[in-house]
Amino acid sequence: MSPVALQLQRAVVLHGPKDLRLEDRPSWPPQINQAQVAVKSTGLCGSDLHYYLEGRNGDFALQAPLVLGHESAGVITAVGPGVKNLVPGQRVAIEAGIMCKECNYCQAGRYNLCKDMRFASSAKTFPHLDGTLQDRMNHPAHVIHPLPDNCSFEQAALAEPLSVLIHAGRRANLRSGLRVLVFGVGAIGVLACALSNAYGASRVVAIDINQARLDFVKSHGFASQTYCLPMVDKAKTTEEQLRRAKENVSVALHEFNEPEGFDIVFECTGAEPCIQMSIHAAVAGGKVMLVGMGARNVMLPLSAAALREVDVQGSFRYANTYPEAIKLLSSGKLRGIEKLITHRIPLEDAARGFELLARGKDEQGNLVIKVVIEA
Amino acid sequence: MSPVALQLQRAVVLHGPKDLRLEDRPSWPPQINQAQVAVKSTGLCGSDLHYYLEGRNGDFALQAPLVLGHESAGVITAVGPGVKNLVPGQRVAIEAGIMCKECNYCQAGRYNLCKDMRFASSAKTFPHLDGTLQDRMNHPAHVIHPLPDNCSFEQAALAEPLSVLIHAGRRANLRSGLRVLVFGVGAIGVLACALSNAYGASRVVAIDINQARLDFVKSHGFASQTYCLPMVDKAKTTEEQLRRAKENVSVALHEFNEPEGFDIVFECTGAEPCIQMSIHAAVAGGKVMLVGMGARNVMLPLSAAALREVDVQGSFRYANTYPEAIKLLSSGKLRGIEKLITHRIPLEDAARGFELLARGKDEQGNLVIKVVIEA
Amino acid sequence: MSPVALQLQRAVVLHGPKDLRLEDRPSWPPQINQAQVAVKSTGLCGSDLHYYLEGRNGDFALQAPLVLGHESAGVITAVGPGVKNLVPGQRVAIEAGIMCKECNYCQAGRYNLCKDMRFASSAKTFPHLDGTLQDRMNHPAHVIHPLPDNCSFEQAALAEPLSVLIHAGRRANLRSGLRVLVFGVGAIGVLACALSNAYGASRVVAIDINQARLDFVKSHGFASQTYCLPMVDKAKTTEEQLRRAKENVSVALHEFNEPEGFDIVFECTGAEPCIQMSIHAAVAGGKVMLVGMGARNVMLPLSAAALREVDVQGSFRYANTYPEAIKLLSSGKLRGIEKLITHRIPLEDAARGFELLARGKDEQGNLVIKVVIEA
Amino acid sequence: MSPVALQLQRAVVLHGPKDLRLEDRPSWPPQINQAQVAVKSTGLCGSDLHYYLEGRNGDFALQAPLVLGHESAGVITAVGPGVKNLVPGQRVAIEAGIMCKECNYCQAGRYNLCKDMRFASSAKTFPHLDGTLQDRMNHPAHVIHPLPDNCSFEQAALAEPLSVLIHAGRRANLRSGLRVLVFGVGAIGVLACALSNAYGASRVVAIDINQARLDFVKSHGFASQTYCLPMVDKAKTTEEQLRRAKENVSVALHEFNEPEGFDIVFECTGAEPCIQMSIHAAVAGGKVMLVGMGARNVMLPLSAAALREVDVQGSFRYANTYPEAIKLLSSGKLRGIEKLITHRIPLEDAARGFELLARGKDEQGNLVIKVVIEA
Repeated sequence: MSPVALQLQRAVVLHGPKDLRLEDRPSWPPQINQAQVAVKSTGLCGSDLHYYLEGRNGDFALQAPLVLGHESAGVITAVGPGVKNLVPGQRVAIEAGIMCKECNYCQAGRYNLCKDMRFASSAKTFPHLDGTLQDRMNHPAHVIHPLPDNCSFEQAALAEPLSVLIHAGRRANLRSGLRVLVFGVGAIGVLACALSNAYGASRVVAIDINQARLDFVKSHGFASQTYCLPMVDKAKTTEEQLRRAKENVSVALHEFNEPEGFDIVFECTGAEPCIQMSIHAAVAGGKVMLVGMGARNVMLPLSAAALREVDVQGSFRYANTYPEAIKLLSSGKLRGIEKLITHRIPLEDAARGFELLARGKDEQGNLVIKVVIEA
Repeated sequence: MSPVALQLQRAVVLHGPKDLRLEDRPSWPPQINQAQVAVKSTGLCGSDLHYYLEGRNGDFALQAPLVLGHESAGVITAVGPGVKNLVPGQRVAIEAGIMCKECNYCQAGRYNLCKDMRFASSAKTFPHLDGTLQDRMNHPAHVIHPLPDNCSFEQAALAEPLSVLIHAGRRANLRSGLRVLVFGVGAIGVLACALSNAYGASRVVAIDINQARLDFVKSHGFASQTYCLPMVDKAKTTEEQLRRAKENVSVALHEFNEPEGFDIVFECTGAEPCIQMSIHAAVAGGKVMLVGMGARNVMLPLSAAALREVDVQGSFRYANTYPEAIKLLSSGKLRGIEKLITHRIPLEDAARGFELLARGKDEQGNLVIKVVIEA
Repeated sequence: MSPVALQLQRAVVLHGPKDLRLEDRPSWPPQINQAQVAVKSTGLCGSDLHYYLEGRNGDFALQAPLVLGHESAGVITAVGPGVKNLVPGQRVAIEAGIMCKECNYCQAGRYNLCKDMRFASSAKTFPHLDGTLQDRMNHPAHVIHPLPDNCSFEQAALAEPLSVLIHAGRRANLRSGLRVLVFGVGAIGVLACALSNAYGASRVVAIDINQARLDFVKSHGFASQTYCLPMVDKAKTTEEQLRRAKENVSVALHEFNEPEGFDIVFECTGAEPCIQMSIHAAVAGGKVMLVGMGARNVMLPLSAAALREVDVQGSFRYANTYPEAIKLLSSGKLRGIEKLITHRIPLEDAARGFELLARGKDEQGNLVIKVVIEA
Repeated sequence: MSPVALQLQRAVVLHGPKDLRLEDRPSWPPQINQAQVAVKSTGLCGSDLHYYLEGRNGDFALQAPLVLGHESAGVITAVGPGVKNLVPGQRVAIEAGIMCKECNYCQAGRYNLCKDMRFASSAKTFPHLDGTLQDRMNHPAHVIHPLPDNCSFEQAALAEPLSVLIHAGRRANLRSGLRVLVFGVGAIGVLACALSNAYGASRVVAIDINQARLDFVKSHGFASQTYCLPMVDKAKTTEEQLRRAKENVSVALHEFNEPEGFDIVFECTGAEPCIQMSIHAAVAGGKVMLVGMGARNVMLPLSAAALREVDVQGSFRYANTYPEAIKLLSSGKLRGIEKLITHRIPLEDAARGFELLARGKDEQGNLVIKVVIEA
């Protein structure tokens, strides 16, 4: 087959900070064990935004133009040799990470820790693996997951961030009857609330510094009660910050009528004061699950965790979560979770989607939580 | 204080098979660390029925008159010295078992296996410990659990059978995303369905031989699909029974479109053919949880379990479940579970309650699932 | 490359019951991601013996000539393209099963349950995948495990049966401080004893009907105490058999001074009476781990398990065990486990190895436990 | 009985910093459910030392004279009414903490978190509960544990610190095949090494700043390899300290030939730089178990933990560990652990024991690890 025969497709390619270009690229046929997906919906997330704004995400800087996007769903358009689980026309969600399948982590079911993981839209490995902000993409069939009819593409795009929470929830042993506190109710925090409810948490409450976000989670029933942290001047010393964190969280716990604390605290802000508060907000024997990492180094009131057997855990991506995520999204158990998607933007206007996400509000002053790019 | 000063109260006392007498007994004040409860609602269960019909429950025969009833809620009327967690007027659920608090099982959190457990309404220990089918009862305060305002007495009476399922669910690691099959949808099976839904099971289906029961769970949304086992002549040989069990369940699994089986099978019938079917109905790596034990000895297709790593587990009562049970009952997450209570009978007519339960239908031909005795 | 260029190698090929032929076969070079191993030691196991004696193992009958053997170690002689973890000259253990790496079971770390597993020396899949009773074999590099210098080939051949126990031990949550009872001390039972000791079991005792085997485990310190079951006439009825099982085990438990039972019972005989005894031999809240399955259907005293929360579990092969097995074998923590290998036979006399295993005693009346075939 | 009839006994009473007085006190008979123990051996630990040196232990200051000591064994001299598990003359270990037995933590098997725990020798509750540095003590029978004949009193005194490690090991899921690194090899660190070996760890190595301690653990086989941290000037900035911690641990990991890190890191120093190093020393997916807490607030390289799913856990005392501890101590599986006891001091010279512990070396320059006070 000559390259001339290849169809062209559109891709949104990042060449540097804020340098996003809509390009035509050839659409290659899927290789052995790959399927080709016509991407329909891609959610934008915080790491996409970091790349867009800064050309890097933490330690990982662009070394070549990169297609972003990894929260994605679409339709199978072709399958390569050896593919048995998929057929053209099938509606699917795309799991962006391609694990090695052979290392200790992969064999033991913790493929999110695979050191040879190649993750679509990430600049960690080189050559980079392009993400889903394009019309077509080829991807290994075994990480492409069929959708039931009642799961829309944009719902399915939520399977990725929901997977982050399912994984975090499994690690924290989230289950029925527990009391859950969520710090920070951006998209990840809202999903933490919704998942906790779906898992039977006896109580789900949220803390944020943004009243509009708290109103959102309260009015849609994701949290039964909320607390808005007062904005104050930055503490002058570490000691003052730690003291304030303890005092602030004590006030919040009393507002929530849970002075002893919560069984699981999902920390979704990555902000040092919130991480400090999280520890005091967990009940003795409880858990702090760090979902959103920000600061690299954090001053922790560690004895308050250790002596009360509050485990401090982080979670990195997810493993074996897509089937459950898709079932949850199609089941209605995340009641109204699609409300999370506040803005839908066509592929050719992807830059506008990133700008909205960066600002957190749109031109009409509406809250921006999750932006979905649609093809 | 002279006994003359004691108030009299009514108690429904079993003297032998079907020999239930309403008697007046003195109402003693609560001892140290005890509270006195005015019992408002008591659900009747299968073991109560065994005592009523046969004067025994399995190995445990009446050795003296016994007050039955252990699914119960009421109002605190007095507290003995040392009680700090309860006050008169408080609405509560009563946990019937009194553990020793000191043996290895108690210290390790598995007090349901405590060999010195005294269980109200059971003839296992002697002198027997009376149950809750009486106006007042004194009981250790630490196994009496406060109710939130929005939990009715009859809902709270369900905390006991629900506890059985919570405990079974914990042992089977019931959690979100799993597919659940329930054999037998009497009260316990309905609770198995409802709990599975509350825990986020991706699918809950039921099998029974009684179409009316299946209609009940289907119409109230406890199971999304049901299968009615055909009634046939008893198998002539063990081999035939085993072969039939395998065939029957294969048909059912295909009806459910789950030919590989379910992640957790709750066996709530205790019938040998259903236990046999349960094993084939579990997916490789899944679990069979025996909630209702009937036959003492059972011919099991054991290699079909062992070689597929299907764990066969039983559960005995519960431990540390009441707080979660009460939260679930008051949360609405068991959607419509109070529909389970099909009949309410005043204390003085308790015998009628037992007769209804024994027959499974009332005079109008309505299904009898859970009978609650009300004071 | 012409086939003429290929070296010839010897293979011991089973053509039917007891029809074992030493044949010359071409030695193919390793394919992509494969390594070639010069096999040095192969242990014979019960399933090999079934194929040898009957031409089948349970449901799986020979459909073509098959090379047996899957407990194996050797030296890398060549590596195919893409192999990074191995180099020629390296000493290795061979994990016989080749999993699909993509199904739910594989991705979740339970690859032993992979439905597409191809297992060297098994007739389950067709074309059959040849085992290790040959001079050279090509095998995927990711299931070939490097050996430390102080682990001999014959020790490493034990990594396979030891893996069976490591897997069973993980499933049963075998750990320090537990009391362990082992039924049946053939090779698997001896490994169960040795592993339990290595994991810190507080007590390891064994039951068998063969005093010579019990003497072996006692004298080598694998079990601290043993009990020899009396041989009696077969029970005339199921009831009698069940009654006897309960009585016999009660005697044994009293001999062991553990009337309440053991925390974990490893059932390594597959015999119905022993399985029945296992249930009564487990303490309330304990576990019966069925390692050796024999009878397909078994009459179980199921209420004695369920009501005491004794879990009945099986284990099938192993997953993610080889690294730990090799570490244990080279660490000395299985003190004297190589004594298990009672007979070493050259490849060309493999048939004699099978005959010894079948008889359980050699010509001098010595116990045969594990036979290793050496190249 | 008149008080005059009471025997007198000796008690070592702390009245203030370094103010330890040998006093005669009446020996009261045991109350209901209590037993009286003639204390034979009491190990001194770090919290005892804090009270001795400073009159306080962290937040808990002496409010009245207090008898220290809680690592203890002795002989039953009398039992109060209701005691069934003990008889006079029985050799026992004393578990110092008295839990409430009724709160959620107690009922769920986590009694170490019981908020009403009264702990002998601690000034946390008032009136204080005296410890074991006296001739006789009365204590609830259910927290007194019988000793086998082959467990000496001084070995049994180690059941307490060993319990700390058993509990920490359970929380960290310490088990066979794991690689363990221990920071700090005082008494607790040595026990961490010994326990890891007993649980089948594949490798146990240690880091300290004290070469003599490292020589001790190496020469007695508790650790297979050690690394002595270079002593350097205190870092001038937090950043420098964090950078140094990362570099130092990287060097150590290369020395150990484990550049990816260890599965479990037991941090037994409580020192900030060691806690920082612990995180980098754990492999992705591993655990840092904080056994010795020192600094209240610690600057942590938290993203290095969270993004690699390294759990940071603490442990507080222990629950349900004494039976296992005693079995381990009497089994010989902790090979030579009694070597930990470097000094034995009579009760009347208790002050000398504290001074030895404070100095870490005796007059002859020998290492002081564990001091046992003998009656």
